[in-house]
Amino acid sequence: MVYITHSGENLSKINQILKVAQKRFGLYGLQKTTMQEIAFDLGISKASLYYYFPDKEHLFKAVVEMEQDVFIQLIDDTLKENYDPIDMLKKFVKIRLDYFKTFFNLSRLRLEEFKMVRPLLSDTLHQLRQKEAEIVELILLQGVERKKFSISNTRETAILFLELLRGLRGLIFQNKELMYVEQEEYDMLYTKLNLFTDIFIKGIMNYETK
Amino acid sequence: MVYITHSGENLSKINQILKVAQKRFGLYGLQKTTMQEIAFDLGISKASLYYYFPDKEHLFKAVVEMEQDVFIQLIDDTLKENYDPIDMLKKFVKIRLDYFKTFFNLSRLRLEEFKMVRPLLSDTLHQLRQKEAEIVELILLQGVERKKFSISNTRETAILFLELLRGLRGLIFQNKELMYVEQEEYDMLYTKLNLFTDIFIKGIMNYETK
Repeated sequence: MVYITHSGENLSKINQILKVAQKRFGLYGLQKTTMQEIAFDLGISKASLYYYFPDKEHLFKAVVEMEQDVFIQLIDDTLKENYDPIDMLKKFVKIRLDYFKTFFNLSRLRLEEFKMVRPLLSDTLHQLRQKEAEIVELILLQGVERKKFSISNTRETAILFLELLRGLRGLIFQNKELMYVEQEEYDMLYTKLNLFTDIFIKGIMNYETK
Repeated sequence: MVYITHSGENLSKINQILKVAQKRFGLYGLQKTTMQEIAFDLGISKASLYYYFPDKEHLFKAVVEMEQDVFIQLIDDTLKENYDPIDMLKKFVKIRLDYFKTFFNLSRLRLEEFKMVRPLLSDTLHQLRQKEAEIVELILLQGVERKKFSISNTRETAILFLELLRGLRGLIFQNKELMYVEQEEYDMLYTKLNLFTDIFIKGIMNYETK
């Protein structure tokens, strides 16, 4: 990220820009939002905005990264609470779904646009996947330690769990042009994810000590 | 299907066409295969071929339906063997994966082409999904009857299982332009599907009578 070398004053300016941009993107999506509009919302000139971000895409990326940080922070805070691994896995699924709802509705991209934006976000998404795999593996390891779970390869199982979550989420966008999640679809997906998570947890439980 | 009203002689002709077309599509994919080439392979004129099929797309659809029938027949035969529901579910996953490997390699479509062909195949695919849901629900019901499985809603669980399988399969095509499955990818997917199926089965098992 460019702005980590900025001074404190600039940092607070950047945070302000990110919050305003987040609101605009959330309302109108990436394509329909202009740098002019964001500058107007901020009460600054377009040139000033370009001083901080070279183009709309980089600003969008920074907003996505900000939301990602919030998501990871929320998960980390939950982990610190040291709940039961079963509850933790369920909480993870819920927090993750909330995050993706925000992410997709922020972009409101048509599928073909998403393919264009993807390279821009690829390292961001890659880092997120890494971090998610670490988190889920940590939860699974805690479950194994407490003799709640019986898993031979926690890394492989963590990745499988995330892929299954991702696969179910992907079905929402099948036959869909616009990557926007309606509340109703979100509720349906949540029900489905819960049913899946319950079966998955039962499937990795340790029945020997029961 | 058009050809069910044809006479016996025509039916055997049509079967011959389907087999030859299947081979061509399997080698070169839908886009790179011409009606001329299929007619040549059959030793008949292009006009004769058009007597049976109005265009290449309908011929392709008939080939897909033929393979689908083989897939369903294989599953039905397996069900008749009356294996243990657990084995049956595993066999279903394996036979299904083999079928999809054939299907995708038959079409070798670029993703954007697949979107164009999809409407043509939509009723065929819809019927397949219905049939698959029936089969999986039947297996689950047998498991519940034999007190092997504990499932509150077999229909919902059958659909979830199929969606999870579909989701995992879909990951293969992510970031991929051509819908062609390499042997290596197929092996990786098979390993993943097995791990998933084992966890899923453990997750729906009835532990009360154990």
